[in-house]
Amino acid sequence: MRAVNREVVLRRPCAGRPVAEDFEVVDRPEPEAATGFVTVRSLYQALDPYIGTRLRGRHMGEPAPAPGENLPGYAVGEVLASGDPDLAPGDLVVGEMGWVERGRMAATAVRKVDPTLSAADHLGLLGLPGLTAWAGVTQLAKITAGDVFSVDAAAGAVGGTAGQIARHLGARTVGIAGGAEKCALVRDLYGFDAAIDYRLEGWVEAYGAAVGKGPTAHFENVGVSVLAPVLQRLQSYGRIVLCGLAEHYHADGPPAQLPIGPLVGKRAQVFGLVVYDFFPRLTEWVAMARPWIEAGTLTLAHDIGEGAESAPGHFERLLKGENQGRALVQMSPS
Amino acid sequence: MRAVNREVVLRRPCAGRPVAEDFEVVDRPEPEAATGFVTVRSLYQALDPYIGTRLRGRHMGEPAPAPGENLPGYAVGEVLASGDPDLAPGDLVVGEMGWVERGRMAATAVRKVDPTLSAADHLGLLGLPGLTAWAGVTQLAKITAGDVFSVDAAAGAVGGTAGQIARHLGARTVGIAGGAEKCALVRDLYGFDAAIDYRLEGWVEAYGAAVGKGPTAHFENVGVSVLAPVLQRLQSYGRIVLCGLAEHYHADGPPAQLPIGPLVGKRAQVFGLVVYDFFPRLTEWVAMARPWIEAGTLTLAHDIGEGAESAPGHFERLLKGENQGRALVQMSPS
Repeated sequence: MRAVNREVVLRRPCAGRPVAEDFEVVDRPEPEAATGFVTVRSLYQALDPYIGTRLRGRHMGEPAPAPGENLPGYAVGEVLASGDPDLAPGDLVVGEMGWVERGRMAATAVRKVDPTLSAADHLGLLGLPGLTAWAGVTQLAKITAGDVFSVDAAAGAVGGTAGQIARHLGARTVGIAGGAEKCALVRDLYGFDAAIDYRLEGWVEAYGAAVGKGPTAHFENVGVSVLAPVLQRLQSYGRIVLCGLAEHYHADGPPAQLPIGPLVGKRAQVFGLVVYDFFPRLTEWVAMARPWIEAGTLTLAHDIGEGAESAPGHFERLLKGENQGRALVQMSPS
Repeated sequence: MRAVNREVVLRRPCAGRPVAEDFEVVDRPEPEAATGFVTVRSLYQALDPYIGTRLRGRHMGEPAPAPGENLPGYAVGEVLASGDPDLAPGDLVVGEMGWVERGRMAATAVRKVDPTLSAADHLGLLGLPGLTAWAGVTQLAKITAGDVFSVDAAAGAVGGTAGQIARHLGARTVGIAGGAEKCALVRDLYGFDAAIDYRLEGWVEAYGAAVGKGPTAHFENVGVSVLAPVLQRLQSYGRIVLCGLAEHYHADGPPAQLPIGPLVGKRAQVFGLVVYDFFPRLTEWVAMARPWIEAGTLTLAHDIGEGAESAPGHFERLLKGENQGRALVQMSPS
């Protein structure tokens, strides 16, 4: 019999970019079944950069959780007991239940997912990051054959998926990532045509060479340090998806400021992207992705922490860009 | 018989924002007829802010004219003699022939315009400024009934036309302009729902009150000093047409930098606008505008300099924002 039900919570408010010491692992009561609720055993907890801003009250106007409260972010898990006729024990579900081994959620707040696809993929390729990538590439940038598509944080879940979708749609793909290991992932596993290591001197020139006449579309996850030089090289009528500004989320000093002059002369188009708008269309993306996943031409590396105790350090590494692949935590190792 | 054929040229390269002293009026030979060319008597010369950047080699990559060379910008005039079968003496034409009383242009470089519409309108409502406004309002921002539309430099030819088009399409219109006189023009002659004087303290709050829940679309002609506070108030999914950055054209210091964070959360869309793309569609705009002009519900004030000698000072006043209405010069007063 299990002795504890561990949960990761904030130990203190985050003063800057969250670090492992901001968190603690506590024991919580086993969740109890109730009408309208399901109890769920977590398989994987998703760690995403946006959670870092959520924890500081800087994401979409939502308040920061107080120390001890449930943390935000999606988990995929197995229903243990159901107080709802549409969900049954054994069902695979996704929802926000806190970073917990076993939790309880309102049945209306969970989404039943296809158990013939991998549990981890429901948080990655087929979860928020994949849907984000799909929305930006297909709905905003509207990538088609012949496009030159670049994306930064290209070893990350969003960037890596975006590049693979663009490749499937016929674009030349250039990924920007930090370090040789991530660039190898981008090129070898994700199949980008080129990977540019922004940590190397001269990366802007290398990027310029890789995009040839310039990108026709660019997907921005990082911020102005990448976007400004990319914009200089953007082809006329180029599209920019503005998805994330991760380098600015926890930076002190002035906010992200982009020199916008080139937007005019290039007739650029910029599209702000918030994935929540596209939740109702997740099934479209899953339908598009499934054959690619089954054929092995759409994939994500996973970087999985083992056990609740690993979550604080794993999250800190993600925010420092030290993860290698989709960051997940297996909350309750089997 | 006329003794001279005056032309305005640069006396020296412009060191900063062009001033009257940068120009001089010189006597030029009367143009001679030739096969493939037309000689034209100028009725009006258009003065536009973009000409100021053209004169400094900062517009669309085109080099600055050297002192003594023809100046850029469109004129409307009457054909005197034609070496082309499609053009006849008396025809009303528009083209770039320099700021000259009488000039000569290749027949392929002039455009015959409708003499039943006013000559001045062919440089304003139905010229570059009007086409710019039409493109931004109807093709990029895609204004429809219910939109809340704001535009700056609203007393100017582009801004004033943009607001009137948006009003005709059913939008609530808010114009931003400098000074009480311009604001009266915006409100009383152009029929905007509100005019905001950005020279008054508290103009941002006044703008906020005028746009209510915020603009759903904004047309930018000035630069970051307006765009940044507008962006703070933009409604979600709002569209921004980036047409001009006039305040930055001749400023020293760093280029225009926009805090772009709000673009993401608001799912904003930004469209760079270069009017040259829409030249082939001018007839569409003229067809839309004609009934409004005939009904008196689309109009522009004109601020007309008399004679070639007036052009340098008139242009300087335009660049300083001291003009009141569409800036033209009647090169050769009759």
